[in-house]
Amino acid sequence: EHAGKIEHPPVTTDGNKANGQTLLVSDRNKYKSMLIRTYSTVWMIGGFAFLVYMGHLYIWAMVVVIQIFMATELFNLLRKSSEEKQLPGFRLLNWHFFFTAMLFTYGRFLSRELVNTVSSDHLLYKLVSGLIKYQMFICYFLYISGFVWFILTLKKKTYKYQFKQYAWTHMILLTVFAQSSFTVANIFEGMFWFLLPASLIVINDIAAYLFGFFLGRTPLIKLSPKKTWEGFIGASVTTIISAFLLANVMGRFQWFTCPRKDLSTGWLQCDPGPMFKPEHYYLGDWFPWKDVFLMPVQWHALALGLFASIIAPFGGFFASGFKRAFKIKDFGDSIPGHGGITDRMDCQMVMAVFAYIYHQSFISPHNFSVDAILDQILRNLTYEEQRNLYEQLGEMLGNLCKA
Amino acid sequence: EHAGKIEHPPVTTDGNKANGQTLLVSDRNKYKSMLIRTYSTVWMIGGFAFLVYMGHLYIWAMVVVIQIFMATELFNLLRKSSEEKQLPGFRLLNWHFFFTAMLFTYGRFLSRELVNTVSSDHLLYKLVSGLIKYQMFICYFLYISGFVWFILTLKKKTYKYQFKQYAWTHMILLTVFAQSSFTVANIFEGMFWFLLPASLIVINDIAAYLFGFFLGRTPLIKLSPKKTWEGFIGASVTTIISAFLLANVMGRFQWFTCPRKDLSTGWLQCDPGPMFKPEHYYLGDWFPWKDVFLMPVQWHALALGLFASIIAPFGGFFASGFKRAFKIKDFGDSIPGHGGITDRMDCQMVMAVFAYIYHQSFISPHNFSVDAILDQILRNLTYEEQRNLYEQLGEMLGNLCKA
Repeated sequence: EHAGKIEHPPVTTDGNKANGQTLLVSDRNKYKSMLIRTYSTVWMIGGFAFLVYMGHLYIWAMVVVIQIFMATELFNLLRKSSEEKQLPGFRLLNWHFFFTAMLFTYGRFLSRELVNTVSSDHLLYKLVSGLIKYQMFICYFLYISGFVWFILTLKKKTYKYQFKQYAWTHMILLTVFAQSSFTVANIFEGMFWFLLPASLIVINDIAAYLFGFFLGRTPLIKLSPKKTWEGFIGASVTTIISAFLLANVMGRFQWFTCPRKDLSTGWLQCDPGPMFKPEHYYLGDWFPWKDVFLMPVQWHALALGLFASIIAPFGGFFASGFKRAFKIKDFGDSIPGHGGITDRMDCQMVMAVFAYIYHQSFISPHNFSVDAILDQILRNLTYEEQRNLYEQLGEMLGNLCKA
Repeated sequence: EHAGKIEHPPVTTDGNKANGQTLLVSDRNKYKSMLIRTYSTVWMIGGFAFLVYMGHLYIWAMVVVIQIFMATELFNLLRKSSEEKQLPGFRLLNWHFFFTAMLFTYGRFLSRELVNTVSSDHLLYKLVSGLIKYQMFICYFLYISGFVWFILTLKKKTYKYQFKQYAWTHMILLTVFAQSSFTVANIFEGMFWFLLPASLIVINDIAAYLFGFFLGRTPLIKLSPKKTWEGFIGASVTTIISAFLLANVMGRFQWFTCPRKDLSTGWLQCDPGPMFKPEHYYLGDWFPWKDVFLMPVQWHALALGLFASIIAPFGGFFASGFKRAFKIKDFGDSIPGHGGITDRMDCQMVMAVFAYIYHQSFISPHNFSVDAILDQILRNLTYEEQRNLYEQLGEMLGNLCKA
């Protein structure tokens, strides 16, 4: 969110005001606020590291909790209590749509994973198979119920308010769920694809804050008057270098590089593939290290670093602009010194989507095809159907054999 | 859109007004407006029948044209020319997002079909394969460019206006593209799954209009003061019976029942499957027809008819409420006597999504699995990969054979 804050040196005494907020903060407040912020940051990073250690399922749970917080913050933001007194059950409708979106996004995924875990004659298996098969229909039914409910509770005096709320609810759910479903997909592709992008955003944020704090002079963009070019550029360089190095470190752990194909939290072992196999580079005699071993994934990490530092901050600018347009200071007050969860997630959202699409387009497309289709076959077809498919495929490939 | 209009008999003379519009229309105007409406309706149905005769590709083109009209109507609706004078290039941004959505929705589909049509050593094949492989990335790139463009063109005085426009643009694209991508999917699943639902909405509209016109007395819902219970109920019965009969008629033509797996417009031949095989029912001696032959699909048609007459009209109520909330009469004036294209599409949208999800959930899930996966294999994998998959699958099924 913050790509470098202008903090005037303590000696300056002009009372420069922008949008009602004093840019100049007294020395004491400045360091106090930095302390609070640092304190929360350390707690967040520590908690996050613990969840990464615990496993994919726990991070997923974290994503869901963040979603609920974000939705709460955003729903609260757009409601006018005066209008809602006339509309009992209106907030319930928002949450009805929220849980429908939840079922839609995760239902299929969750149930597919469960099928893998539970034996096939178990009652749960049948329930879950039903849920997979009719998941789309159930979600549609829930959505349409909400739609009909909305129309039946329209009241003449609040038509406009209600329609606007309906539209904003959809926008909020789109924002919250688009990002988080990509995040969860990244986690299960291998924690690397979630952890590296998320870390890069955090690194970029902190670097921008520090560069801005100590060197910031030149304002970057009108939307966020506290952001500076010094913070932006310093953070970019830091982030790109960190991406290159971090990828090498994270790439050494199978806990990070292996995809997770079920919902267990046990140990992971796999062949991480050529992306994570170090290759030898000879740099020449005039380097302190003549030989280096780099993983191919490090070059891709550069692309992630570039995006995290150049494009992802626009997520923050967007949020700043939004807050400015609707005259709010923060989206919430969940995290001391940082504002709401949403304030902390703005760039993460943009990044998670990019990481997913980058991974799908440039990393996994080849393996994706054969492995993904095999996965589909094993998960969704009965044994009979698998045999049937096998035989049809055999015929199409020219009667390879007759079983 | 209209589930029965209250039209007072000519003898009534009270000047009953609702929302500034006279419900009582003079005899002459009433029949004149009905004539104009009938005239446009006949032209639309005729043009539509011609496109159905021409083939799947032409209907797809029609859907795209309708999308462009709808987007134009809706974009026009929400713009304030006073604000936009200060924002050059702002409408261009809307259309940038529109074409990004177009590429996203149809790109993959179109290119997959093209791959099937074009031989594999052709230059076009390589271009198109590239487009498939990187389609998601290209769309994301275009979207993010628009996003950055939006942020860079934010102007202090119009922040709020611009953010609202951004949100409405997304809502408009969501509405327009969600429905049309489902519609196009229905067309290629077999024209039956597009034609029957679309016809049911038209039948329901016309029946509601006629029942309302001649019998309408009791108002149905405050949102649309011209709609009556008589129109609603009469139309429901008509629609459900029509669904049952029409399904039998449409089910006889392979042009309607066969899925279309490429982009050609040639003749279609296939085994339409058990859904469309007439089954014998013996009704008993006291019926004028002792023996009837019904297709299983006719029972499903009842569900479609029920939805088309009970739930789909809520699409119309939603549109009425929306127009009322934002104080507009029609979304546009493209069709004489009907208003804009959007006014005519409101229920069709709700219906197309339902038809698709119903088809996926209750009609095709079984065949879907094996056939769809085979399709995927043949379309997306090279011959080498297909062999590879075949061998891996063979091993997993217990070494069925060694090729």
